[in-house]
Amino acid sequence: MGESLGGLKRTLMCGEFRESHIGQKHVVMGWVQRKRNLGGLVFIDLRDREGLLQVVFGEEINKDAFEKADLVKSEYCIAVEGDLVKRESPNDSMPTGMVELKGQNIKILSESETPPIYIKENLDTDEAIRLKYRFLDLRRPDIQRVFKIRHKTAKVVRDFMDENGFLEIETPMLTKSTPEGARDYLVPSRNYPGMFYALPQSPQLFKQLLMVSGYDKYFQITKCFRDEDLRANRQPEFTQIDMELSFVDMEDIIALNEKLIQKIFKEVTNVEVQLPIQRIAYKEAMDKYGSDKPDLRFGMEINDISEVVKNAEFKVFKDALEIGGSVRAIKVPNSADMGRKQIDKLTEFVKAYKAKGLAWISYKEGEIKSPISKFLKEEEVSGILSKLDAVPGDLILIVADKDSVVLQALGALRLEMAKKLEILKDNKEFKFVWVTEFPLVSYNEEEGRYQAEHHPFTMPMEEDIPYLESDPGKVRAKAYDIVLNGEELGGGSIRIHDTNLQEKMFTVLGFTKESAWERFGFLLDAFRFGPPPHGGLAYGFDRMIMFLSGTDNIKDVIAFPKNQNAYCPLTEAPNVVDKNQLNELGINLQENN
Amino acid sequence: MGESLGGLKRTLMCGEFRESHIGQKHVVMGWVQRKRNLGGLVFIDLRDREGLLQVVFGEEINKDAFEKADLVKSEYCIAVEGDLVKRESPNDSMPTGMVELKGQNIKILSESETPPIYIKENLDTDEAIRLKYRFLDLRRPDIQRVFKIRHKTAKVVRDFMDENGFLEIETPMLTKSTPEGARDYLVPSRNYPGMFYALPQSPQLFKQLLMVSGYDKYFQITKCFRDEDLRANRQPEFTQIDMELSFVDMEDIIALNEKLIQKIFKEVTNVEVQLPIQRIAYKEAMDKYGSDKPDLRFGMEINDISEVVKNAEFKVFKDALEIGGSVRAIKVPNSADMGRKQIDKLTEFVKAYKAKGLAWISYKEGEIKSPISKFLKEEEVSGILSKLDAVPGDLILIVADKDSVVLQALGALRLEMAKKLEILKDNKEFKFVWVTEFPLVSYNEEEGRYQAEHHPFTMPMEEDIPYLESDPGKVRAKAYDIVLNGEELGGGSIRIHDTNLQEKMFTVLGFTKESAWERFGFLLDAFRFGPPPHGGLAYGFDRMIMFLSGTDNIKDVIAFPKNQNAYCPLTEAPNVVDKNQLNELGINLQENN
Repeated sequence: MGESLGGLKRTLMCGEFRESHIGQKHVVMGWVQRKRNLGGLVFIDLRDREGLLQVVFGEEINKDAFEKADLVKSEYCIAVEGDLVKRESPNDSMPTGMVELKGQNIKILSESETPPIYIKENLDTDEAIRLKYRFLDLRRPDIQRVFKIRHKTAKVVRDFMDENGFLEIETPMLTKSTPEGARDYLVPSRNYPGMFYALPQSPQLFKQLLMVSGYDKYFQITKCFRDEDLRANRQPEFTQIDMELSFVDMEDIIALNEKLIQKIFKEVTNVEVQLPIQRIAYKEAMDKYGSDKPDLRFGMEINDISEVVKNAEFKVFKDALEIGGSVRAIKVPNSADMGRKQIDKLTEFVKAYKAKGLAWISYKEGEIKSPISKFLKEEEVSGILSKLDAVPGDLILIVADKDSVVLQALGALRLEMAKKLEILKDNKEFKFVWVTEFPLVSYNEEEGRYQAEHHPFTMPMEEDIPYLESDPGKVRAKAYDIVLNGEELGGGSIRIHDTNLQEKMFTVLGFTKESAWERFGFLLDAFRFGPPPHGGLAYGFDRMIMFLSGTDNIKDVIAFPKNQNAYCPLTEAPNVVDKNQLNELGINLQENN
Repeated sequence: MGESLGGLKRTLMCGEFRESHIGQKHVVMGWVQRKRNLGGLVFIDLRDREGLLQVVFGEEINKDAFEKADLVKSEYCIAVEGDLVKRESPNDSMPTGMVELKGQNIKILSESETPPIYIKENLDTDEAIRLKYRFLDLRRPDIQRVFKIRHKTAKVVRDFMDENGFLEIETPMLTKSTPEGARDYLVPSRNYPGMFYALPQSPQLFKQLLMVSGYDKYFQITKCFRDEDLRANRQPEFTQIDMELSFVDMEDIIALNEKLIQKIFKEVTNVEVQLPIQRIAYKEAMDKYGSDKPDLRFGMEINDISEVVKNAEFKVFKDALEIGGSVRAIKVPNSADMGRKQIDKLTEFVKAYKAKGLAWISYKEGEIKSPISKFLKEEEVSGILSKLDAVPGDLILIVADKDSVVLQALGALRLEMAKKLEILKDNKEFKFVWVTEFPLVSYNEEEGRYQAEHHPFTMPMEEDIPYLESDPGKVRAKAYDIVLNGEELGGGSIRIHDTNLQEKMFTVLGFTKESAWERFGFLLDAFRFGPPPHGGLAYGFDRMIMFLSGTDNIKDVIAFPKNQNAYCPLTEAPNVVDKNQLNELGINLQENN
């Protein structure tokens, strides 16, 4: 062993010691979590990736080692040699708590200044400081656990894909703008000054090319990039589990992915996912939950009460029904006592979703209170309660408007009420659902044209193809999202491989032959030569790890994340570069910088 | 099954059929390799990722299918249903050659235009065409084999690293300029106009941070980027197997990596690598082979004959020895008959390596010929022959100059002669060697200062540390390269984790405290808090796949490579972007573009 290790060779990791090791001589290396000098003995809690071990030094064990040990401070990196013994006062809260190492020899491998943040579980320090000292933050055992989960998950995925005949194939990072719609990160070219590569938003076109090339089953765990304004839980670079298969239909892809999901959750967190995973059509998801990524861990579904109130003399309801909209309601349990102020807050809440107001009915044993009861006949009020199967204690919340507003507002309100009532507190359930039968296209009012909901290569459902030209908004896609606890975990579709159908699709989307070629040229070129039927799916890997490790902060699952401004406080990237670097690339900075 | 698959479900891949399947009904899907209409029967060789299968159609088998099958052309994508039968005239050259499928039903999944390149093994077509139609080039079975090998190799590596306690941790793609020295690819920032991210040249600093953070054993298979002029076998983006370990010394890293190499070559190509792999010190490699990546599959070592000719009256030798240089020679077998013209060509060859000329001695039974024999005493000539153990038939090639020129010229000449003599033709050997004891620093004549040979964090060998300030050029590094058949497969080093030593190192390299901090700030910052002893290694993954798949063209092992100008003829990247994209980034194009 070299001098730098003090001539020592580590025999076991700190967290691995158990009673079975008692009586053995060992060498451990790690960081000083805590040092105490108690009654002539020095106790050190030594920490490594696998856990903590108590090391004890005393004059009677070894005088030199004792004196040296008394010099160490928190986060010193040390090596200790000694005998493993039974601990006199065991600590049940530590896996190694039955044993300790009697330090006969210590080597200080490196010293540490006082760290600016504590190295402990669930640290509650300002995020800016944590990101600047990320190398210390990453020492926290709870954070290290996340990266063990991340590693394990990737391993499980790769093993599964390999067993199922998939090839992992790397697609380029320096490529051309993709048509996904988000903003690209650009990379100036030196060989072609004035021209730019784009970092990929996804390997979409390349994975379809690989299917045309006959690779049959492709996957990749890979970085993708989007230069968007960062919301919570978005990062400029993120990781995707991406796959594409040939000669399959939607059912094959769903069946395979259910097995994958089951395996991941079983092997990583020991959770049994029951198969098949339930499915819900997009329309039903919107009608019941006001969302295409419904959280099915609780009820409180949206009910359409338009029929019940269709003759009511209440102008708000009347107006909504007249414009072809609807009146819908959710039933909130144990909330009939909610005060006026709180209800006012909920009214403000739904207004953020463009609802004009919020009507309510409080139903208590022998008492029904509502600001709109004066506009409604008694049988209309009881009709509403009956339609919602209301029981005393329920609060009914009602929105009337055009459908899109009603559903969005009540969908958001449903989640808000669940949060307020802490319905999901301590809920450890993983509730999966496939959302299917998405609309193929939607009408973009601003641009006055239809646009692809997924992407322009998504296959329509066979039975809807006849409406492709006559009523595109009615056509459903062979697209599917896998939703977990109200979050989109992944999604995909079967792709069009038929040239005629593809041309029709481009016509619907308002592309000319030229403009389609300009954007998707090389894929269309490839499709001239016998493309196979194919489809795929991609998961947000970071989000998956958030679920598996139980964190709601994406920065916890990325080793070196950026902040909300896409800035890295640790490395200070981005930064300025030399003028001659820019000259090589043929670019100048604009003057106002 | 959906309409797009003709209501069919594939039962087996084309290349998987064997005699054991005879008598079964099957559905296959794939591409038409070849179609022949022979005496009222249509024969189709159907191709998928796993191989070829003969499918036969006839009026008597199924009239509809026969008529439809007669319409297909090369590269049509089709599905066929039928009975698997024994083939009347077996084809031993195909794994499926004993059987054929009797086509009872055919569905044309998509048509193909006549492809611009042939889909066949070892296609000898212009590379520009191949890159433009890469999606067709990728259909070639020999190319598909490469990507199976690439997938398999990555899998073997990941399994091995996982078994050995390594965590795969992703490091950022959008980061800050690294100090590796090559040119960075830059990415303009939108949030901070005028500032830039850099794409990583390697995860070097991040992996060292992860060691400081206590992750103990890190690895990653990841993309790296260098904006350099592309030589053959360089690509702007390339893939590295990267690893870093804490609490280890060089011997631990070498032992682990020998096991890894053994496993890869065994599992991927069934080659047994004998362990331990031999080692050679840098100095010996330079002296014997004139290279720090010696090809040990053949001898023809360089011999120092300075001692033999130290008193010779030949001015070229005298001059070389006077400036402290040397006279060295290689012995080329079976070449004593080489003509004057060929030898002149060799003289031109060594001149490209700055040698002033090439002396030679042709040794035949009873005859010694040499243009320099007139300057040498007889015993000097025989001394040279004896020093080189020459036998009749040998040609001795001699260069005299300062050592660096002599060694480089003879090192290159040695390889050139091996090529000319086809010494390595049909040689399937994998000859590994660890090169160790590299110089820590080298003197940069231009800049008048020492520079790090590996990087500034490389640990010196303990016994040489005393010379660090007095004679830096003498200090050897704890660095190691793994060389295979004369190519560098990977390399790494033990890193400095001692602040004092690191400061000394920076002084040697001419850094001030400020300039060191500016370049390596966040790593130095991290080193204030108990850095562990650590070291690592990185392999060029693309080059490894080249060896494993037996190709000498890096473009064969990358799915979507760039050409020599870092341009992608397939996607036409890089290309121009909108002015408003540039405005968002705060950059302008320079006018001469």
